[in-house]
Amino acid sequence: MSHVNDSQTKTAVAYAQQHADQFLAEMVEFLKIPSISTRSQHDADVRRAADWLADNMRGGGLENVTIYKTDGHPLVYADWLHAKDAPTVLFYGHYDVQPADNLDLWQSPPFEPEIRDQSIFARGCSDDKGQVLILVKAVEAYLQAHGTVPVNIKFIIEGEEESGGEAIAKFLPEHKDLLKADIAYVADTAFADFNIPSIVYGLRGIAAVNIDVMGPRLDLHSGSYGGGVDNPINAIAHIIAQLKDQNGHVLVPHFYDGVRELSAAERQLIAENALEDVAGWLEWIGVSAEWGEPEFTLAERLGARPTLDVNGIIGGYTGEGGKTIIPSQVHAKIT
Amino acid sequence: MSHVNDSQTKTAVAYAQQHADQFLAEMVEFLKIPSISTRSQHDADVRRAADWLADNMRGGGLENVTIYKTDGHPLVYADWLHAKDAPTVLFYGHYDVQPADNLDLWQSPPFEPEIRDQSIFARGCSDDKGQVLILVKAVEAYLQAHGTVPVNIKFIIEGEEESGGEAIAKFLPEHKDLLKADIAYVADTAFADFNIPSIVYGLRGIAAVNIDVMGPRLDLHSGSYGGGVDNPINAIAHIIAQLKDQNGHVLVPHFYDGVRELSAAERQLIAENALEDVAGWLEWIGVSAEWGEPEFTLAERLGARPTLDVNGIIGGYTGEGGKTIIPSQVHAKIT
Repeated sequence: MSHVNDSQTKTAVAYAQQHADQFLAEMVEFLKIPSISTRSQHDADVRRAADWLADNMRGGGLENVTIYKTDGHPLVYADWLHAKDAPTVLFYGHYDVQPADNLDLWQSPPFEPEIRDQSIFARGCSDDKGQVLILVKAVEAYLQAHGTVPVNIKFIIEGEEESGGEAIAKFLPEHKDLLKADIAYVADTAFADFNIPSIVYGLRGIAAVNIDVMGPRLDLHSGSYGGGVDNPINAIAHIIAQLKDQNGHVLVPHFYDGVRELSAAERQLIAENALEDVAGWLEWIGVSAEWGEPEFTLAERLGARPTLDVNGIIGGYTGEGGKTIIPSQVHAKIT
Repeated sequence: MSHVNDSQTKTAVAYAQQHADQFLAEMVEFLKIPSISTRSQHDADVRRAADWLADNMRGGGLENVTIYKTDGHPLVYADWLHAKDAPTVLFYGHYDVQPADNLDLWQSPPFEPEIRDQSIFARGCSDDKGQVLILVKAVEAYLQAHGTVPVNIKFIIEGEEESGGEAIAKFLPEHKDLLKADIAYVADTAFADFNIPSIVYGLRGIAAVNIDVMGPRLDLHSGSYGGGVDNPINAIAHIIAQLKDQNGHVLVPHFYDGVRELSAAERQLIAENALEDVAGWLEWIGVSAEWGEPEFTLAERLGARPTLDVNGIIGGYTGEGGKTIIPSQVHAKIT
């Protein structure tokens, strides 16, 4: 491989290739832990994932491996700081995962990793355990094969990326010296396309809102009360329908306040690096057409425009068959 | 009781009073059977409710008690036809019940009847096992105490009232002679108010529709796909919001075709028999205001105007915390 042009890296890559089976087995172990941070029933699993990661870091030669307790889920820190006169790189990532339901839609169980056609299928594999472990194993390969790394390394890996990130937000200002670095590398982004490695220099933030519409104190028979009492599901539909027009433009007042306009240079850069195979992308997603604000390109909408989505909704009777009710409540989650 | 003015009825009432504890125990037994006809997992329970009812009718002295098998749930028939030169009354009712969830909202389990302040709380108590069993016990009281009933009696009790009623719709035209009667009494209506016994001469029919909005073939990360792909929940909200305006007027084209206008006489009758204690009604329901088409009175809207309600909706992530997805699907039930 022509781009591997220094001896340290050659040795490290050789080590990684020799230990590929072991590294893969470790990845599978990590992926098996259902570290769903948003679900309190998985708190012990989240803690187990932090412990597993810290042990793995220690085993690979990283130093000062520490699990920092927080009010929420713990933070995992590690470093290797013996590269004199070299810059320091801070790696950020997370060991927690999103919920895995709806389980019916998985071809293999989300926490029993399955390798199909050279890809691993499991919850958290690409968000973010895979990216984190690749970095840990890269450092390990350098240290075990060569005894050194060309730069100084710090890791800060959190367990609440999928559930608010309050712990790290509090931790950062209190540990400025610990985390001081020349480069901060976020190992939690994506390629612009399957074959376009990408440097992401900005990410959309997030605000999460629940809407709870409460109607009558109990479910009412719609045959006896219909026409006399407002229906919470009809009401929430009116609310949601007013959040975004049918072209994808968000109608919430002040939603776009503070959103910087894209410069001509940015629009050009985005266009130059846009998804090339839109048809293939649509086919993979399983929809017939792209959709969104018509005055922006698909790449601009995906990469730079703020958006608003209803992530879930539930209310009334949702089982088999029917039930003639005006439901008491309906709930929606919005980001 | 001054209105009990013939000796047959006096004897029957005395019998019912002497057997009140037994009748109540039987009612509790009947209510314990979770005969939820819309859920196939309860098919055996539905059958058990039919068997229980038939046995109870036989024990009370009714004749020709028959369980008619159908393509769906069975029909229970019984009669007593020895009142010469007297009219025949056909009683209709149903032994099936609606689903009982959301279980969290019950003060006592739906199929473990609980007596509180002289009322029985259980699923199906007032819809419709209570009404059915009262009639069966009334006939039993006449027959056991006096050996006769003033009129001829037929019962046809179905098990699909809460799930489409296809079996009885097929059965009726094929059994005209069996069910021939001078009076048909539907034991499945309600009082106009808590203290207004009512003769109901017409009931709203029903049409049930499911809306299934299918988006991407899998849940997508809304941070990576938001703005590029339409969201099924936003889409269904637009659909539902367009079904009914915010005053309760249904916007579905042709929805009101064939709805007869209320005559002045009907409007007057409805007004004369309207709910008197609207404030008490609202308090019982737990809402702050009545709601619906402003050009009709509450009594007209509840009793005579067609309506449209979303009975349930589910899509995307509905568990604890959040999940940043564009969901693959959303489903709503409408009647």
